[in-house]
Amino acid sequence: MQFLRLGEPGSERPAVRHDGSTYDLAPLTADVDGGFLAADGVGATRAALAAGDLPALDEADLRVGPPIAPPGKVICIGLNYRDHAEETGAEIPAEPVVFLKTADTIVGPYDQVLIPRKSVKTDWEVELGIVIGRTARYVESDAEALACVAGYVLSHDVSEREFQIERGGTWDKGKNCETFNPLGPFLVPADEIADPQRLELRLWVNGELKQDSSTKNMIFPVAEVVRYLSQFMVLRPGDLINTGTPAGVALGQPEPKPYLREGDVVELEVEGLGRQKQTFGQA
Amino acid sequence: MQFLRLGEPGSERPAVRHDGSTYDLAPLTADVDGGFLAADGVGATRAALAAGDLPALDEADLRVGPPIAPPGKVICIGLNYRDHAEETGAEIPAEPVVFLKTADTIVGPYDQVLIPRKSVKTDWEVELGIVIGRTARYVESDAEALACVAGYVLSHDVSEREFQIERGGTWDKGKNCETFNPLGPFLVPADEIADPQRLELRLWVNGELKQDSSTKNMIFPVAEVVRYLSQFMVLRPGDLINTGTPAGVALGQPEPKPYLREGDVVELEVEGLGRQKQTFGQA
Repeated sequence: MQFLRLGEPGSERPAVRHDGSTYDLAPLTADVDGGFLAADGVGATRAALAAGDLPALDEADLRVGPPIAPPGKVICIGLNYRDHAEETGAEIPAEPVVFLKTADTIVGPYDQVLIPRKSVKTDWEVELGIVIGRTARYVESDAEALACVAGYVLSHDVSEREFQIERGGTWDKGKNCETFNPLGPFLVPADEIADPQRLELRLWVNGELKQDSSTKNMIFPVAEVVRYLSQFMVLRPGDLINTGTPAGVALGQPEPKPYLREGDVVELEVEGLGRQKQTFGQA
Repeated sequence: MQFLRLGEPGSERPAVRHDGSTYDLAPLTADVDGGFLAADGVGATRAALAAGDLPALDEADLRVGPPIAPPGKVICIGLNYRDHAEETGAEIPAEPVVFLKTADTIVGPYDQVLIPRKSVKTDWEVELGIVIGRTARYVESDAEALACVAGYVLSHDVSEREFQIERGGTWDKGKNCETFNPLGPFLVPADEIADPQRLELRLWVNGELKQDSSTKNMIFPVAEVVRYLSQFMVLRPGDLINTGTPAGVALGQPEPKPYLREGDVVELEVEGLGRQKQTFGQA
Protein backbone atom coordinates (compact mmCIF):
# COMPACT_ATOMS: atom_id res chain seq x y z
CA MET A 1 0.00 0.00 0.00
CA GLN A 2 1.34 3.42 -0.95
CA PHE A 3 -0.02 6.70 0.36
CA LEU A 4 0.48 9.69 -1.88
CA ARG A 5 -0.77 13.21 -2.51
CA LEU A 6 -1.72 14.34 -5.98
CA GLY A 7 -2.34 17.80 -7.40
CA GLU A 8 -0.79 21.23 -7.58
CA PRO A 9 1.44 22.56 -4.79
CA GLY A 10 -0.62 23.50 -1.77
CA SER A 11 -3.77 21.80 -3.03
CA GLU A 12 -2.72 18.16 -3.21
CA ARG A 13 -5.38 15.59 -2.38
CA PRO A 14 -4.72 12.29 -0.64
CA ALA A 15 -4.69 9.01 -2.54
CA VAL A 16 -3.69 5.42 -2.03
CA ARG A 17 -2.26 2.86 -4.43
CA HIS A 18 -3.18 -0.75 -3.84
CA ASP A 19 -2.89 -3.84 -6.05
CA GLY A 20 -2.02 -1.80 -9.14
CA SER A 21 -4.88 0.67 -8.81
CA THR A 22 -5.12 4.16 -7.35
CA TYR A 23 -7.96 5.28 -5.11
CA ASP A 24 -9.13 8.64 -3.87
CA LEU A 25 -8.55 8.89 -0.12
CA ALA A 26 -10.60 12.09 0.27
CA PRO A 27 -13.70 10.22 1.54
CA LEU A 28 -11.58 9.06 4.48
CA THR A 29 -9.33 12.03 5.28
CA ALA A 30 -8.59 15.56 4.14
CA ASP A 31 -4.86 14.85 4.12
CA VAL A 32 -2.10 12.38 4.95
CA ASP A 33 -1.16 14.26 8.09
CA GLY A 34 -0.28 13.66 11.72
CA GLY A 35 -3.91 13.39 12.81
CA PHE A 36 -4.65 10.78 10.16
CA LEU A 37 -1.57 8.72 11.01
CA ALA A 38 -2.08 8.96 14.79
CA ALA A 39 -5.71 7.80 14.48
CA ASP A 40 -4.64 4.62 12.64
CA GLY A 41 -5.46 6.02 9.23
CA VAL A 42 -3.48 3.12 7.80
CA GLY A 43 -5.87 0.61 9.34
CA ALA A 44 -8.90 2.66 8.31
CA THR A 45 -7.59 2.77 4.75
CA ARG A 46 -7.14 -0.99 4.67
CA ALA A 47 -10.70 -1.45 5.93
CA ALA A 48 -12.07 1.02 3.38
CA LEU A 49 -10.19 -0.71 0.55
CA ALA A 50 -11.45 -4.10 1.66
CA ALA A 51 -15.01 -2.78 1.80
CA GLY A 52 -14.68 -1.16 -1.64
CA ASP A 53 -15.49 2.23 -0.12
CA LEU A 54 -12.83 4.28 -1.97
CA PRO A 55 -13.49 5.57 -5.49
CA ALA A 56 -10.91 4.83 -8.18
CA LEU A 57 -8.72 7.77 -9.19
CA ASP A 58 -7.07 8.45 -12.54
CA GLU A 59 -3.52 9.64 -11.82
CA ALA A 60 -2.90 10.78 -15.40
CA ASP A 61 -1.77 14.39 -15.63
CA LEU A 62 -1.80 14.84 -11.87
CA ARG A 63 1.39 16.14 -10.28
CA VAL A 64 2.79 13.93 -7.54
CA GLY A 65 3.30 16.05 -4.44
CA PRO A 66 5.12 15.20 -1.23
CA PRO A 67 3.36 12.17 0.27
CA ILE A 68 2.69 13.76 3.65
CA ALA A 69 1.24 17.12 4.69
CA PRO A 70 3.84 19.70 5.78
CA PRO A 71 5.32 18.19 8.94
CA GLY A 72 5.65 20.05 12.22
CA LYS A 73 9.37 19.48 11.98
CA VAL A 74 12.03 17.84 9.85
CA ILE A 75 14.89 16.37 11.89
CA CYS A 76 18.02 15.16 10.16
CA ILE A 77 20.78 12.80 11.21
CA GLY A 78 24.24 13.68 9.88
CA LEU A 79 27.16 11.35 9.21
CA ASN A 80 25.06 8.25 9.86
CA TYR A 81 26.95 6.05 7.38
CA ARG A 82 30.57 5.27 8.20
CA ASP A 83 31.78 5.61 4.60
CA HIS A 84 30.10 9.02 4.25
CA ALA A 85 31.66 10.28 7.49
CA GLU A 86 35.05 9.11 6.20
CA GLU A 87 34.67 10.70 2.75
CA THR A 88 33.88 14.08 4.33
CA GLY A 89 36.89 13.85 6.66
CA ALA A 90 34.64 13.83 9.75
CA GLU A 91 35.13 11.58 12.74
CA ILE A 92 32.77 8.66 13.18
CA PRO A 93 30.15 10.12 15.55
CA ALA A 94 29.90 8.63 19.03
CA GLU A 95 26.21 9.54 19.14
CA PRO A 96 23.80 10.79 16.46
CA VAL A 97 24.58 14.16 14.89
CA VAL A 98 21.35 16.15 14.70
CA PHE A 99 20.36 19.14 12.59
CA LEU A 100 17.08 20.54 11.31
CA LYS A 101 15.38 21.41 8.06
CA THR A 102 12.26 23.55 7.86
CA ALA A 103 9.09 21.99 6.49
CA ASP A 104 8.78 24.58 3.74
CA THR A 105 11.84 23.11 1.99
CA ILE A 106 9.75 20.05 1.07
CA VAL A 107 8.68 19.65 -2.57
CA GLY A 108 7.40 16.79 -4.67
CA PRO A 109 9.66 14.00 -5.99
CA TYR A 110 9.69 15.28 -9.57
CA ASP A 111 9.59 19.02 -8.89
CA GLN A 112 12.41 21.29 -9.95
CA VAL A 113 15.10 21.93 -7.33
CA LEU A 114 16.61 25.40 -7.32
CA ILE A 115 20.33 26.01 -6.98
CA PRO A 116 20.53 29.04 -4.67
CA ARG A 117 21.95 32.31 -5.94
CA LYS A 118 25.72 32.48 -5.34
CA SER A 119 25.81 28.75 -4.67
CA VAL A 120 28.83 26.89 -6.04
CA LYS A 121 28.58 23.72 -3.94
CA THR A 122 25.05 22.32 -4.24
CA ASP A 123 25.19 18.60 -3.44
CA TRP A 124 22.92 15.54 -3.35
CA GLU A 125 22.06 13.08 -0.54
CA VAL A 126 19.73 10.09 -0.93
CA GLU A 127 18.15 9.14 2.41
CA LEU A 128 15.61 6.91 4.08
CA GLY A 129 12.93 9.09 5.68
CA ILE A 130 10.97 8.09 8.80
CA VAL A 131 7.45 9.46 9.32
CA ILE A 132 6.27 9.52 12.93
CA GLY A 133 2.82 8.16 13.78
CA ARG A 134 2.71 8.42 17.56
CA THR A 135 4.00 11.03 20.03
CA ALA A 136 7.43 10.03 21.36
CA ARG A 137 8.91 11.46 24.58
CA TYR A 138 11.84 9.86 26.40
CA VAL A 139 11.35 6.52 24.66
CA GLU A 140 13.29 3.77 26.44
CA SER A 141 13.25 0.72 24.19
CA ASP A 142 13.79 -0.08 20.53
CA ALA A 143 10.37 -1.75 20.39
CA GLU A 144 8.66 1.37 21.72
CA ALA A 145 10.64 3.48 19.24
CA LEU A 146 9.60 1.38 16.25
CA ALA A 147 5.97 1.50 17.42
CA CYS A 148 6.16 5.30 16.96
CA VAL A 149 7.03 4.96 13.26
CA ALA A 150 4.06 5.30 10.89
CA GLY A 151 6.00 4.56 7.75
CA TYR A 152 8.91 5.26 5.47
CA VAL A 153 9.57 7.60 2.54
CA LEU A 154 12.34 8.39 0.09
CA SER A 155 13.91 11.75 0.98
CA HIS A 156 16.46 13.90 -0.83
CA ASP A 157 18.43 15.99 1.66
CA VAL A 158 19.82 18.54 -0.82
CA SER A 159 22.74 20.45 0.73
CA GLU A 160 24.87 23.48 -0.09
CA ARG A 161 28.32 22.67 1.26
CA GLU A 162 29.80 26.16 1.31
CA PHE A 163 26.74 27.47 3.16
CA GLN A 164 26.77 24.41 5.44
CA ILE A 165 30.44 24.24 6.37
CA GLU A 166 32.32 27.38 5.42
CA ARG A 167 29.97 30.18 6.46
CA GLY A 168 30.11 29.93 10.25
CA GLY A 169 27.69 28.42 12.70
CA THR A 170 25.69 25.26 12.28
CA TRP A 171 24.91 23.15 9.24
CA ASP A 172 21.36 24.54 9.05
CA LYS A 173 22.51 27.40 6.82
CA GLY A 174 23.23 25.01 3.95
CA LYS A 175 20.25 22.72 4.44
CA ASN A 176 17.27 25.05 4.24
CA CYS A 177 17.36 26.67 0.83
CA GLU A 178 14.08 26.75 -1.10
CA THR A 179 13.08 23.34 -2.61
CA PHE A 180 15.93 21.53 -0.78
CA ASN A 181 13.89 18.52 0.39
CA PRO A 182 12.19 16.55 -2.39
CA LEU A 183 10.04 13.89 -0.71
CA GLY A 184 8.22 10.82 -1.96
CA PRO A 185 6.72 9.71 -4.29
CA PHE A 186 4.85 7.74 -1.63
CA LEU A 187 4.68 6.70 2.02
CA VAL A 188 4.75 2.98 2.80
CA PRO A 189 3.30 1.89 6.16
CA ALA A 190 5.91 0.56 8.57
CA ASP A 191 4.34 -2.88 8.78
CA GLU A 192 4.84 -3.35 5.02
CA ILE A 193 8.61 -2.81 5.24
CA ALA A 194 10.03 -6.14 6.40
CA ASP A 195 13.29 -4.64 7.68
CA PRO A 196 14.13 -0.93 7.45
CA GLN A 197 17.80 -1.85 7.87
CA ARG A 198 17.86 -3.96 4.69
CA LEU A 199 16.92 -1.40 2.05
CA GLU A 200 19.21 -0.59 -0.85
CA LEU A 201 19.53 3.07 -1.75
CA ARG A 202 21.02 4.63 -4.87
CA LEU A 203 21.44 7.98 -6.57
CA TRP A 204 22.46 8.94 -10.09
CA VAL A 205 23.54 12.30 -11.54
CA ASN A 206 22.95 12.63 -15.27
CA GLY A 207 22.65 8.85 -15.46
CA GLU A 208 25.90 8.11 -13.63
CA LEU A 209 25.62 6.08 -10.42
CA LYS A 210 26.99 8.14 -7.52
CA GLN A 211 25.60 6.56 -4.35
CA ASP A 212 24.97 2.84 -3.93
CA SER A 213 24.58 1.44 -0.45
CA SER A 214 22.17 -0.17 1.99
CA THR A 215 20.49 1.02 5.15
CA LYS A 216 22.25 -1.90 6.85
CA ASN A 217 25.32 0.37 6.85
CA MET A 218 23.72 2.98 9.12
CA ILE A 219 25.73 3.66 12.26
CA PHE A 220 22.56 4.42 14.22
CA PRO A 221 19.58 2.40 12.94
CA VAL A 222 15.98 3.61 12.79
CA ALA A 223 14.98 2.42 16.26
CA GLU A 224 18.01 4.03 17.88
CA VAL A 225 17.49 7.30 15.98
CA VAL A 226 13.89 7.58 17.20
CA ARG A 227 14.75 6.57 20.77
CA TYR A 228 17.71 8.97 20.86
CA LEU A 229 15.88 11.97 19.40
CA SER A 230 13.03 11.53 21.86
CA GLN A 231 15.46 12.29 24.71
CA PHE A 232 16.01 15.80 23.31
CA MET A 233 12.72 16.77 21.70
CA VAL A 234 9.14 15.60 21.39
CA LEU A 235 8.48 13.66 18.19
CA ARG A 236 4.91 14.22 17.03
CA PRO A 237 2.69 12.44 14.50
CA GLY A 238 3.50 13.65 10.99
CA ASP A 239 7.09 14.67 11.82
CA LEU A 240 9.78 13.62 9.34
CA ILE A 241 13.25 12.28 10.17
CA ASN A 242 15.93 12.11 7.46
CA THR A 243 18.27 9.34 8.56
CA GLY A 244 21.49 10.32 6.80
CA THR A 245 23.23 9.53 3.53
CA PRO A 246 25.87 6.99 2.48
CA ALA A 247 29.13 7.75 0.65
CA GLY A 248 29.18 9.15 -2.87
CA VAL A 249 28.21 12.81 -2.49
CA ALA A 250 30.06 15.51 -4.46
CA LEU A 251 31.78 16.74 -1.28
CA GLY A 252 33.53 13.38 -1.00
CA GLN A 253 34.93 13.34 -4.57
CA PRO A 254 38.42 14.45 -5.68
CA GLU A 255 38.85 18.01 -6.95
CA PRO A 256 37.27 19.41 -8.99
CA LYS A 257 34.26 18.19 -7.05
CA PRO A 258 31.25 17.64 -9.32
CA TYR A 259 28.75 19.92 -7.59
CA LEU A 260 25.38 20.32 -9.27
CA ARG A 261 24.83 22.85 -12.05
CA GLU A 262 21.71 24.17 -13.75
CA GLY A 263 20.27 21.48 -16.00
CA ASP A 264 21.71 18.53 -14.10
CA VAL A 265 19.30 15.65 -13.57
CA VAL A 266 19.34 13.71 -10.30
CA GLU A 267 17.54 10.40 -9.86
CA LEU A 268 17.36 8.50 -6.60
CA GLU A 269 15.63 5.52 -5.05
CA VAL A 270 15.28 3.55 -1.87
CA GLU A 271 14.22 -0.08 -2.27
CA GLY A 272 10.45 -0.36 -1.97
CA LEU A 273 9.96 3.40 -1.61
CA GLY A 274 9.96 4.44 -5.26
CA ARG A 275 12.13 6.75 -7.29
CA GLN A 276 12.61 10.51 -7.61
CA LYS A 277 13.85 12.56 -10.55
CA GLN A 278 14.69 16.25 -10.39
CA THR A 279 16.07 18.67 -12.92
CA PHE A 280 18.08 21.36 -11.19
CA GLY A 281 17.31 24.97 -12.02
CA GLN A 282 18.78 28.29 -10.94
CA ALA A 283 17.10 30.50 -8.33
CA MET B 1 -1.24 48.38 20.02
CA GLN B 2 -0.52 44.89 21.30
CA PHE B 3 -1.64 41.69 19.61
CA LEU B 4 -2.09 38.71 21.86
CA ARG B 5 -3.73 35.30 22.04
CA LEU B 6 -5.77 34.29 25.08
CA GLY B 7 -7.03 30.90 26.19
CA GLU B 8 -5.88 27.36 26.80
CA PRO B 9 -3.00 25.84 24.78
CA GLY B 10 -4.11 25.02 21.26
CA SER B 11 -7.37 26.96 21.52
CA GLU B 12 -6.16 30.52 22.06
CA ARG B 13 -8.25 33.25 20.50
CA PRO B 14 -6.85 36.48 19.06
CA ALA B 15 -7.14 39.77 20.93
CA VAL B 16 -5.76 43.27 20.79
CA ARG B 17 -4.93 45.74 23.52
CA HIS B 18 -5.36 49.41 22.74
CA ASP B 19 -5.51 52.50 24.97
CA GLY B 20 -5.75 50.43 28.14
CA SER B 21 -8.58 48.18 26.96
CA THR B 22 -8.62 44.71 25.45
CA TYR B 23 -10.74 43.78 22.43
CA ASP B 24 -11.74 40.50 20.86
CA LEU B 25 -10.08 40.15 17.46
CA ALA B 26 -12.14 37.10 16.44
CA PRO B 27 -14.58 39.17 14.31
CA LEU B 28 -11.58 40.15 12.15
CA THR B 29 -9.43 36.99 12.03
CA ALA B 30 -9.33 33.43 13.34
CA ASP B 31 -5.73 33.89 14.46
CA VAL B 32 -2.68 36.13 14.53
CA ASP B 33 -0.96 34.15 11.81
CA GLY B 34 1.01 34.64 8.61
CA GLY B 35 -2.09 35.18 6.49
CA PHE B 36 -3.41 37.86 8.82
CA LEU B 37 -0.07 39.66 8.97
CA ALA B 38 0.57 39.44 5.21
CA ALA B 39 -2.89 40.85 4.43
CA ASP B 40 -2.21 43.96 6.53
CA GLY B 41 -4.10 42.67 9.52
CA VAL B 42 -2.43 45.44 11.50
CA GLY B 43 -4.05 48.10 9.32
CA ALA B 44 -7.39 46.29 9.39
CA THR B 45 -7.22 46.12 13.19
CA ARG B 46 -6.54 49.85 13.43
CA ALA B 47 -9.50 50.56 11.17
CA ALA B 48 -11.77 48.24 13.16
CA LEU B 49 -10.69 49.84 16.44
CA ALA B 50 -11.31 53.33 15.03
CA ALA B 51 -14.75 52.26 13.84
CA GLY B 52 -15.59 50.64 17.19
CA ASP B 53 -16.15 47.31 15.44
CA LEU B 54 -14.36 45.11 17.98
CA PRO B 55 -16.15 43.92 21.15
CA ALA B 56 -14.44 44.47 24.49
CA LEU B 57 -12.88 41.41 26.09
CA ASP B 58 -12.36 40.66 29.78
CA GLU B 59 -8.86 39.19 30.15
CA ALA B 60 -9.43 38.06 33.73
CA ASP B 61 -8.70 34.37 34.27
CA LEU B 62 -7.63 33.87 30.64
CA ARG B 63 -4.23 32.31 30.07
CA VAL B 64 -1.91 34.39 27.90
CA GLY B 65 -0.65 32.19 25.07
CA PRO B 66 2.11 32.84 22.57
CA PRO B 67 1.12 36.00 20.65
CA ILE B 68 1.38 34.42 17.21
CA ALA B 69 0.08 31.17 15.74
CA PRO B 70 2.67 28.38 15.45
CA PRO B 71 5.14 29.75 12.89
CA GLY B 72 6.31 27.84 9.84
CA LYS B 73 9.81 28.14 11.20
CA VAL B 74 11.84 29.59 14.07
CA ILE B 75 15.27 30.81 13.00
CA CYS B 76 17.82 31.80 15.62
CA ILE B 77 20.94 33.93 15.47
CA GLY B 78 23.75 32.82 17.76
CA LEU B 79 26.52 34.92 19.32
CA ASN B 80 24.95 38.17 18.11
CA TYR B 81 26.15 40.26 21.07
CA ARG B 82 29.90 40.75 21.38
CA ASP B 83 29.93 40.37 25.18
CA HIS B 84 27.98 37.09 24.98
CA ALA B 85 30.35 35.67 22.36
CA GLU B 86 33.25 36.62 24.61
CA GLU B 87 31.74 35.10 27.77
CA THR B 88 31.23 31.77 25.99
CA GLY B 89 34.79 31.76 24.67
CA ALA B 90 33.60 31.90 21.06
CA GLU B 91 35.14 34.06 18.35
CA ILE B 92 33.24 37.14 17.26
CA PRO B 93 31.36 35.86 14.20
CA ALA B 94 32.27 37.31 10.81
CA GLU B 95 28.72 36.68 9.59
CA PRO B 96 25.53 35.65 11.39
CA VAL B 97 25.56 32.25 13.10
CA VAL B 98 22.27 30.51 12.28
CA PHE B 99 20.46 27.64 13.95
CA LEU B 100 16.86 26.49 14.17
CA LYS B 101 14.20 25.79 16.74
CA THR B 102 11.02 23.89 15.97
CA ALA B 103 7.71 25.70 16.33
CA ASP B 104 6.39 23.17 18.84
CA THR B 105 8.89 24.43 21.44
CA ILE B 106 6.85 27.64 21.73
CA VAL B 107 4.77 28.17 24.87
CA GLY B 108 3.11 31.16 26.52
CA PRO B 109 5.08 33.78 28.49
CA TYR B 110 3.93 32.55 31.92
CA ASP B 111 3.76 28.81 31.19
CA GLN B 112 5.94 26.35 33.04
CA VAL B 113 9.25 25.48 31.34
CA LEU B 114 10.44 21.90 31.73
CA ILE B 115 14.04 21.02 32.53
CA PRO B 116 14.69 17.96 30.35
CA ARG B 117 15.41 14.60 31.95
CA LYS B 118 19.16 14.13 32.52
CA SER B 119 19.74 17.85 31.96
CA VAL B 120 22.34 19.48 34.17
CA LYS B 121 22.96 22.64 32.15
CA THR B 122 19.62 24.29 31.38
CA ASP B 123 20.28 27.98 30.72
CA TRP B 124 18.38 31.20 29.97
CA GLU B 125 18.60 33.69 27.06
CA VAL B 126 16.50 36.86 26.76
CA GLU B 127 16.06 37.88 23.11
CA LEU B 128 14.32 40.27 20.76
CA GLY B 129 12.09 38.29 18.40
CA ILE B 130 11.23 39.39 14.86
CA VAL B 131 7.94 38.28 13.29
CA ILE B 132 7.92 38.27 9.48
CA GLY B 133 4.99 39.88 7.65
CA ARG B 134 6.01 39.59 4.02
CA THR B 135 7.79 36.86 2.02
CA ALA B 136 11.51 37.60 1.79
CA ARG B 137 13.78 36.01 -0.85
CA TYR B 138 17.24 37.36 -1.66
CA VAL B 139 16.50 40.75 -0.13
CA GLU B 140 19.09 43.32 -1.20
CA SER B 141 18.61 46.40 0.97
CA ASP B 142 18.07 47.19 4.63
CA ALA B 143 14.92 49.12 3.75
CA GLU B 144 13.45 46.11 1.92
CA ALA B 145 14.43 43.89 4.86
CA LEU B 146 12.69 46.11 7.41
CA ALA B 147 9.58 46.24 5.21
CA CYS B 148 9.33 42.44 5.64
CA VAL B 149 9.06 42.76 9.45
CA ALA B 150 5.49 42.66 10.80
CA GLY B 151 6.46 43.31 14.39
CA TYR B 152 8.48 42.41 17.45
CA VAL B 153 8.06 40.06 20.42
CA LEU B 154 9.89 39.09 23.57
CA SER B 155 11.40 35.63 23.15
CA HIS B 156 13.12 33.31 25.63
CA ASP B 157 15.59 31.04 23.84
CA VAL B 158 15.97 28.43 26.59
CA SER B 159 19.07 26.28 25.97
CA GLU B 160 20.61 23.10 27.36
CA ARG B 161 24.37 23.65 27.12
CA GLU B 162 25.53 20.05 27.48
CA PHE B 163 23.08 18.94 24.77
CA GLN B 164 24.03 21.97 22.66
CA ILE B 165 27.80 21.86 22.87
CA GLU B 166 29.07 18.58 24.32
CA ARG B 167 26.93 15.97 22.58
CA GLY B 168 28.23 16.15 18.99
CA GLY B 169 26.77 17.83 15.96
CA THR B 170 25.00 21.14 15.79
CA TRP B 171 23.49 23.31 18.48
CA ASP B 172 19.97 22.20 17.58
CA LYS B 173 20.16 19.28 20.01
CA GLY B 174 20.16 21.66 22.99
CA LYS B 175 17.65 24.15 21.66
CA ASN B 176 14.58 22.06 20.91
CA CYS B 177 13.51 20.48 24.17
CA GLU B 178 9.81 20.67 25.02
CA THR B 179 8.67 24.17 26.20
CA PHE B 180 12.05 25.73 25.34
CA ASN B 181 10.72 28.88 23.64
CA PRO B 182 8.38 31.00 25.79
CA LEU B 183 7.05 33.79 23.58
CA GLY B 184 5.18 37.01 24.25
CA PRO B 185 3.12 38.23 26.03
CA PHE B 186 2.30 40.32 22.95
CA LEU B 187 3.31 41.33 19.44
CA VAL B 188 3.89 45.04 18.76
CA PRO B 189 3.61 46.19 15.12
CA ALA B 190 6.93 47.27 13.63
CA ASP B 191 5.76 50.82 13.01
CA GLU B 192 5.13 51.30 16.73
CA ILE B 193 8.74 50.47 17.66
CA ALA B 194 10.69 53.68 17.03
CA ASP B 195 14.06 51.93 16.75
CA PRO B 196 14.51 48.16 17.20
CA GLN B 197 18.19 48.82 17.91
CA ARG B 198 17.46 50.95 20.98
CA LEU B 199 15.58 48.50 23.20
CA GLU B 200 16.81 47.55 26.64
CA LEU B 201 16.58 43.87 27.55
CA ARG B 202 16.94 42.27 30.96
CA LEU B 203 16.57 38.91 32.67
CA TRP B 204 16.40 37.91 36.34
CA VAL B 205 16.74 34.51 38.00
CA ASN B 206 15.01 34.26 41.38
CA GLY B 207 14.96 38.06 41.50
CA GLU B 208 18.66 38.53 40.76
CA LEU B 209 19.52 40.53 37.62
CA LYS B 210 21.54 38.33 35.25
CA GLN B 211 21.30 39.97 31.83
CA ASP B 212 21.11 43.74 31.28
CA SER B 213 21.89 45.11 27.84
CA SER B 214 20.46 46.86 24.82
CA THR B 215 19.73 45.78 21.27
CA LYS B 216 22.13 48.55 20.23
CA ASN B 217 24.88 46.04 21.13
CA MET B 218 23.85 43.53 18.46
CA ILE B 219 26.67 42.66 16.07
CA PHE B 220 24.17 42.13 13.22
CA PRO B 221 21.12 44.38 13.58
CA VAL B 222 17.55 43.44 12.61
CA ALA B 223 17.74 44.67 9.02
CA GLU B 224 20.98 42.81 8.37
CA VAL B 225 19.67 39.61 9.98
CA VAL B 226 16.59 39.59 7.74
CA ARG B 227 18.57 40.48 4.61
CA TYR B 228 21.22 37.88 5.37
CA LEU B 229 18.81 35.03 6.19
CA SER B 230 16.88 35.66 2.99
CA GLN B 231 19.99 34.68 0.99
CA PHE B 232 19.83 31.17 2.46
CA MET B 233 16.15 30.46 2.99
CA VAL B 234 12.75 31.91 2.22
CA LEU B 235 11.28 33.92 5.08
CA ARG B 236 7.50 33.65 5.11
CA PRO B 237 4.75 35.60 6.88
CA GLY B 238 4.38 34.38 10.45
CA ASP B 239 7.97 33.09 10.74
CA LEU B 240 9.85 33.99 13.91
CA ILE B 241 13.50 35.04 14.21
CA ASN B 242 15.24 35.03 17.60
CA THR B 243 18.01 37.60 17.29
CA GLY B 244 20.46 36.40 19.93
CA THR B 245 21.19 37.11 23.57
CA PRO B 246 23.59 39.45 25.40
CA ALA B 247 26.06 38.46 28.12
CA GLY B 248 24.96 37.11 31.48
CA VAL B 249 23.86 33.53 30.79
CA ALA B 250 24.82 30.72 33.18
CA LEU B 251 27.32 29.33 30.66
CA GLY B 252 29.33 32.54 30.95
CA GLN B 253 29.60 32.54 34.78
CA PRO B 254 32.50 31.20 36.87
CA GLU B 255 32.23 27.62 38.17
CA PRO B 256 30.04 26.35 39.64
CA LYS B 257 27.85 27.77 36.87
CA PRO B 258 24.34 28.58 38.14
CA TYR B 259 22.31 26.46 35.73
CA LEU B 260 18.58 26.33 36.31
CA ARG B 261 17.01 23.90 38.76
CA GLU B 262 13.44 22.84 39.44
CA GLY B 263 11.58 25.65 41.18
CA ASP B 264 13.76 28.47 39.82
CA VAL B 265 11.84 31.51 38.62
CA VAL B 266 13.02 33.39 35.53
CA GLU B 267 11.68 36.81 34.60
CA LEU B 268 12.64 38.70 31.46
CA GLU B 269 11.69 41.77 29.49
CA VAL B 270 12.46 43.73 26.37
CA GLU B 271 11.60 47.41 26.48
CA GLY B 272 8.13 47.98 25.03
CA LEU B 273 7.49 44.27 24.53
CA GLY B 274 6.31 43.27 27.99
CA ARG B 275 7.59 40.85 30.54
CA GLN B 276 7.67 37.06 30.98
CA LYS B 277 7.81 34.97 34.13
CA GLN B 278 8.37 31.22 34.20
CA THR B 279 8.74 28.73 36.99
CA PHE B 280 10.97 25.88 35.93
CA GLY B 281 9.72 22.34 36.44
CA GLN B 282 11.20 18.92 35.80
CA ALA B 283 10.23 16.80 32.78
